Amino acid sequence: MSGTRPSKAKDGGSGRRAVVLLSGGLDSATVLAMARRDGFACHALSIDYGQRHRGELACAARIAEALGAVDHKVIRVDLRAIGGSALTDDIAVPHHASVSEIGSDIPITYVPARNLIFLSMALAHAEARGAFDIFIGVNAVDYSGYPDCRPEFIRAFECAASLATRAGVQGRPFAIHAPIISMSKAEIIAAGASLGVDYGLTTSCYDPPGAGLACGTCDACLLRRQGFVDAGVPDPTRYAVTPT
Amino acid sequence: MSGTRPSKAKDGGSGRRAVVLLSGGLDSATVLAMARRDGFACHALSIDYGQRHRGELACAARIAEALGAVDHKVIRVDLRAIGGSALTDDIAVPHHASVSEIGSDIPITYVPARNLIFLSMALAHAEARGAFDIFIGVNAVDYSGYPDCRPEFIRAFECAASLATRAGVQGRPFAIHAPIISMSKAEIIAAGASLGVDYGLTTSCYDPPGAGLACGTCDACLLRRQGFVDAGVPDPTRYAVTPT
Repeated sequence: MSGTRPSKAKDGGSGRRAVVLLSGGLDSATVLAMARRDGFACHALSIDYGQRHRGELACAARIAEALGAVDHKVIRVDLRAIGGSALTDDIAVPHHASVSEIGSDIPITYVPARNLIFLSMALAHAEARGAFDIFIGVNAVDYSGYPDCRPEFIRAFECAASLATRAGVQGRPFAIHAPIISMSKAEIIAAGASLGVDYGLTTSCYDPPGAGLACGTCDACLLRRQGFVDAGVPDPTRYAVTPT
Repeated sequence: MSGTRPSKAKDGGSGRRAVVLLSGGLDSATVLAMARRDGFACHALSIDYGQRHRGELACAARIAEALGAVDHKVIRVDLRAIGGSALTDDIAVPHHASVSEIGSDIPITYVPARNLIFLSMALAHAEARGAFDIFIGVNAVDYSGYPDCRPEFIRAFECAASLATRAGVQGRPFAIHAPIISMSKAEIIAAGASLGVDYGLTTSCYDPPGAGLACGTCDACLLRRQGFVDAGVPDPTRYAVTPT
């Protein structure tokens, strides 16, 4: 159809390819919408790392389709063999009554070196496909205090990425895009809503009780809920316990 | 036994723990012996990445046992899903008649971002076990031109590692040790032999023809064979075609 805007085509119209890390949550869905807006043909990549909340992988597939990714790949890496986190080990996910109870320490849901592993796999995927841009939905504002969500880590990875690869050595450096790193959760939701992201396709809960519900009391549910309230956007999530 | 030297105990005697990436080849076996010599209690880590020559994983287990690692873990990451290399895709491994025919370009056996992925997983394993030293057997002299075997990459990773992790943020940086990075293959073999490494337990071949043989004509076989010749150490490898 000649009436279709080029930016809506899966190839992005610009000829530029990107790998977008897609967890199934709202942050990375928003980042995929931003990469599409910016004209990238997007290879969505999800990592099956043995996460407790692996229902997010099915969400990622639906988001990739809805937002016009070229393709969506799920790659397995067994981080349960390493453990050390409530998301990959037999450790209980913490629950709180409200967002104000979330502490400032790095929580037990921290997965050792997770974003470094994910970015490394995205880099391999990008190099094998001739893409030189990688998008990741890390956020250093309304987040859980994870060290690998900070700008200084992203810059250090970008440096290592170009030194680690054939493309980098041959003068084609990789750019790591973290477009929501300095945004509040409310700003992320407002931006995604304006780009047409259907947040009903996304999931954030670390400890889903089943039946398509979110628990409503883990850190991820509490931060998500507060973000929708602050953005003035209806929250499509069905919570077992509505967060306050 | 009071007569046992502390350095021979699996705990290394120093109380320092390390993760040692162990491929099953001669370089990483030598590095494990060096880490043991230096008093580290060593957690050996091998990655099952879908490599063509996966027989090396059984070798790694035997080497870890022989050299007194505390334990040996194999973690799976499916790099076949990414492909782009003769080691992980349906691409033929190059063969040559002699070591002089190996080109200077990065060869098709290059696996995109492999050492970055492996070091990231070693970092996760180290952090989960309270180890702050990681050993890797990269070598930038008699090697195959891989970009992720160079000192500048190792330094960049070391920087990213401490920024990526809880331990790093809390003031416990990680040290990445690459003790053979500037040694020739002959020097590596001589050093390992002096530390009692049984190179009969190791394998280097990218394209093993079966029956416990090495092909003798891939780059890895050619470089290995030349190293033993130059070191004046008997080569225990059984080659299908003896390299010249």
